[in-house]
Amino acid sequence: MKYTEGMLRDDALKDKIIIVTGGGSGLGKAMTRYFLQLGAKVAITSRNLDKLKQTATELEQETGGTVLPVACDVRNWEEVEAMKNTVVQNFGFIDILVNNAAGNFISPTERLTHSAFDSILDIVLKGTKNCTLSIGKYWIDQKHPGTVLNIVTTYSWTGSAYVVPSACAKAGVLAMTRSLAVEWAKYNIRFNAIAPGPFPTEGAWERLLPGDLAEKFDMRKKVPLRRVGEHQELANLAAYLVSDYSAYMNGEVVTLDGGEWLQGAGEFNMLEAIPQEMWDMLETMIKAKKKS
Amino acid sequence: MKYTEGMLRDDALKDKIIIVTGGGSGLGKAMTRYFLQLGAKVAITSRNLDKLKQTATELEQETGGTVLPVACDVRNWEEVEAMKNTVVQNFGFIDILVNNAAGNFISPTERLTHSAFDSILDIVLKGTKNCTLSIGKYWIDQKHPGTVLNIVTTYSWTGSAYVVPSACAKAGVLAMTRSLAVEWAKYNIRFNAIAPGPFPTEGAWERLLPGDLAEKFDMRKKVPLRRVGEHQELANLAAYLVSDYSAYMNGEVVTLDGGEWLQGAGEFNMLEAIPQEMWDMLETMIKAKKKS
Amino acid sequence: MKYTEGMLRDDALKDKIIIVTGGGSGLGKAMTRYFLQLGAKVAITSRNLDKLKQTATELEQETGGTVLPVACDVRNWEEVEAMKNTVVQNFGFIDILVNNAAGNFISPTERLTHSAFDSILDIVLKGTKNCTLSIGKYWIDQKHPGTVLNIVTTYSWTGSAYVVPSACAKAGVLAMTRSLAVEWAKYNIRFNAIAPGPFPTEGAWERLLPGDLAEKFDMRKKVPLRRVGEHQELANLAAYLVSDYSAYMNGEVVTLDGGEWLQGAGEFNMLEAIPQEMWDMLETMIKAKKKS
Amino acid sequence: MKYTEGMLRDDALKDKIIIVTGGGSGLGKAMTRYFLQLGAKVAITSRNLDKLKQTATELEQETGGTVLPVACDVRNWEEVEAMKNTVVQNFGFIDILVNNAAGNFISPTERLTHSAFDSILDIVLKGTKNCTLSIGKYWIDQKHPGTVLNIVTTYSWTGSAYVVPSACAKAGVLAMTRSLAVEWAKYNIRFNAIAPGPFPTEGAWERLLPGDLAEKFDMRKKVPLRRVGEHQELANLAAYLVSDYSAYMNGEVVTLDGGEWLQGAGEFNMLEAIPQEMWDMLETMIKAKKKS
Repeated sequence: MKYTEGMLRDDALKDKIIIVTGGGSGLGKAMTRYFLQLGAKVAITSRNLDKLKQTATELEQETGGTVLPVACDVRNWEEVEAMKNTVVQNFGFIDILVNNAAGNFISPTERLTHSAFDSILDIVLKGTKNCTLSIGKYWIDQKHPGTVLNIVTTYSWTGSAYVVPSACAKAGVLAMTRSLAVEWAKYNIRFNAIAPGPFPTEGAWERLLPGDLAEKFDMRKKVPLRRVGEHQELANLAAYLVSDYSAYMNGEVVTLDGGEWLQGAGEFNMLEAIPQEMWDMLETMIKAKKKS
Repeated sequence: MKYTEGMLRDDALKDKIIIVTGGGSGLGKAMTRYFLQLGAKVAITSRNLDKLKQTATELEQETGGTVLPVACDVRNWEEVEAMKNTVVQNFGFIDILVNNAAGNFISPTERLTHSAFDSILDIVLKGTKNCTLSIGKYWIDQKHPGTVLNIVTTYSWTGSAYVVPSACAKAGVLAMTRSLAVEWAKYNIRFNAIAPGPFPTEGAWERLLPGDLAEKFDMRKKVPLRRVGEHQELANLAAYLVSDYSAYMNGEVVTLDGGEWLQGAGEFNMLEAIPQEMWDMLETMIKAKKKS
Repeated sequence: MKYTEGMLRDDALKDKIIIVTGGGSGLGKAMTRYFLQLGAKVAITSRNLDKLKQTATELEQETGGTVLPVACDVRNWEEVEAMKNTVVQNFGFIDILVNNAAGNFISPTERLTHSAFDSILDIVLKGTKNCTLSIGKYWIDQKHPGTVLNIVTTYSWTGSAYVVPSACAKAGVLAMTRSLAVEWAKYNIRFNAIAPGPFPTEGAWERLLPGDLAEKFDMRKKVPLRRVGEHQELANLAAYLVSDYSAYMNGEVVTLDGGEWLQGAGEFNMLEAIPQEMWDMLETMIKAKKKS
Repeated sequence: MKYTEGMLRDDALKDKIIIVTGGGSGLGKAMTRYFLQLGAKVAITSRNLDKLKQTATELEQETGGTVLPVACDVRNWEEVEAMKNTVVQNFGFIDILVNNAAGNFISPTERLTHSAFDSILDIVLKGTKNCTLSIGKYWIDQKHPGTVLNIVTTYSWTGSAYVVPSACAKAGVLAMTRSLAVEWAKYNIRFNAIAPGPFPTEGAWERLLPGDLAEKFDMRKKVPLRRVGEHQELANLAAYLVSDYSAYMNGEVVTLDGGEWLQGAGEFNMLEAIPQEMWDMLETMIKAKKKS
């Protein structure tokens, strides 16, 4: 199956310096692995330095590349500034920022305290803003071109119940993507986003849907293709979007969800439940009606 | 229940001349009734003159207003031109066009012949184009201001399986709405659209979902508000959109579906199925995890 | 001009209790005035109690209605809770919440400090969240139906340079609208939004574009209808959306901008600059080419 | 400049059989060239067999690949069926369909005859429908997996003045993409679309904007990146979307326009015209106001 393999030419990201926030696990780790395979040097950040170091060692051994683990709480401006400086000191410059760090929890909104709601807004929206503003100002100051990739969700534009703080925050990130794609183009800084569908990762999924709920709400049924995504599929798209090959893409959000949100959205898509024999019968009925 | 009553001031459409295509039945008839109550004179069109005459008589008796029934197949340019001339001859001029005539059938797309597919495109998209072009040219020529209201669907932008010809055609009508809203504003012609959710009308619904399928696929479950729409609710919105009160709305499509399409689209909306007790349990689990 | 007059039946909002945040001036004041004329009692909030009291007195004298001025910084959860309690104590209950309070400043994003960026997110997004969560929990607890109207912008979905914090925050508010429209429908709470185009108010416009810039960037040229909106036009739409007449509208954002955002967005709309004589010439050229 | 080079691994489309309608020139030819370089065999179609043969010879010599030129007017169902049969007879089967054939002309809509309008709808919408239905039925019948890529425009969703027939037709094609992505996923048929910004090709551009108008309306100013696209950039994206590497993308439209439509759409993007010195001055004014 080709889609579990890397798709770009081997040197697609040669010598690029990339920061991946939330790069220690899940999709962040999968993207980092592929960026390394394509020749990039990657700084990964999260609050958990031990986890980052472990991931760095693992990926360096696997790919022969260079990974810099940097502890950073993206909610905190000073920590973000320090992280940026650390990356520049170690790698000399920065080419690409992937805003992947996120937080979420599933809950009826009326059960949330106002501060629980805020904490998700702070991680996702203010965190993305902090990294973008800090590194963006650096790029503008240094007259260095830059590329930003933001990881959002399909409910950035449809909204979604039960993950409302995340929906608000990710919608904000999408608006940031589209706004700065226009405003900072004159500084050679380019912005795009990916809206992934279900790409389950052990940790994230279990935190979201503990117990046997993950089984009950089988995401595959919601996807026309009847499967979840492979991490390499997302990594392929991400690598394309941060590479110079997508130089003319700007302000775009690319959905990679097998058609999940469309299946829910289309008014008559539920007629999928009608079996072929019933369609046969309906056809006969309609023809009969026409003749009469 | 207020929403089954008319909402606008009594003279909101006084002396306006309105054409409602497909005005003989269903939502077209409901809109026509309310337009008459608000003081308008209405020409209603469809291919079935007998039905039109019956509706005209009924609505004139009910409202004391004036209805002009005009037979017209909107697919045919010459018939549309003749219809326009008939309305002008009878009423003197035209103020408002409501493109409501439509055709649809529910079917797996691979069971459709290319000509069956075409017939829906012709009624919905070419029909709307014929009426808009004919009456628009008349307005531009006469330097008469005009207002157009197009009836589309939520699957104009989401797409939908099993009604693909209608989806293509209605999407085209939506693009026409947005395009001409900009282009013809200089001629004082204004365009808007409504995307209605489930407003069942006996005829239409039965044609779409014959037999007991209409029961099986209960539209109310798809709507957050758990009910279908009342015809007066659509008539209220339509009257506002064709009246001068909405003079600053232009190029807009207003959805009136109780939230139906959003309920399907949002990634975690299906968690509605989780009962309160399980949320209680989840909350306890999460708190326990945090403490440990 | 009909559009400067109120459109709804006189008792459309009779005895409704409405909170309008940012209700002391501008569009908030205009909406409050019309709500009062339609029979509602309105609590208006902002940080400036003197201004609120002045507006309250003015509108009570003008309309004969009842206005309750309540000082409240929507960024502060405790103040929002106190405001809610004050309204309930004075009016007995709450029916409708209009989230209209906002902050904005126009600036290149790289000139903003991270905390200036945050302050807009806090007022607009966290402020709306605080009011919605506080009053929503009250409605759910009291089993009282509720209606929420959020004021957003067209750049909630397109993004916009030079107002990036506002774009991010308003996008978040739009996602909240769509998310809770689905999630809280079971509690009889309904959400909609308005995206206004240019409705200039002395204060706001001057703060945004000081000096003669407001003249240089004439908003009217950006609008197909070549005029800005009248406050009553927005008040008409807002009154409809908070009234029971729009009971079947849920999760919708209605744009009222004369077609402004579409004029910018459409790829060939700039051809408006071609004069009629040149179109004549082009037509002749094309016909000649076809014959040859 | 990397973006003028091919990005995918050399065997990305090895032995794939692809049909590119409108493949004789412009972007269709550019895509065909790259598909050949990646190992595919390509059938190209248009009404002009001589042009097709010339392109076929040129591309075969350039790439060493195999090109089958097939004359076909996509408006005509029988010709489409014949084309499909010719491709199957020559290549054995079909894997991928690229609906790229289009027609357009720039004109004020009121200057169009109803039949001129229809002719664009027929080429673009009915043509795409004919190819999709013919080859889709073949795939379903043969139980052969398939991939469809439709070329649309950004004005498929924004609409656009002066190209209204094209806007209506392309919007219909986008709805078809999203509808069948859901409906035909069970048959292993996948649909996506590209919305290209300005990728000028001599012929097309001159037909659209004859004379010195093409110079007057410099498309580059409308693009944040201040350049038009290179054909290889579109070919890279197209190759990814028809390859198995994008297997989890379904129902998506990817915009490749340098941010063009967003630049027009965002409400305050025109402030780009303010020079840095004026921002300095504004900043000073605002600070002074705060202190007072």
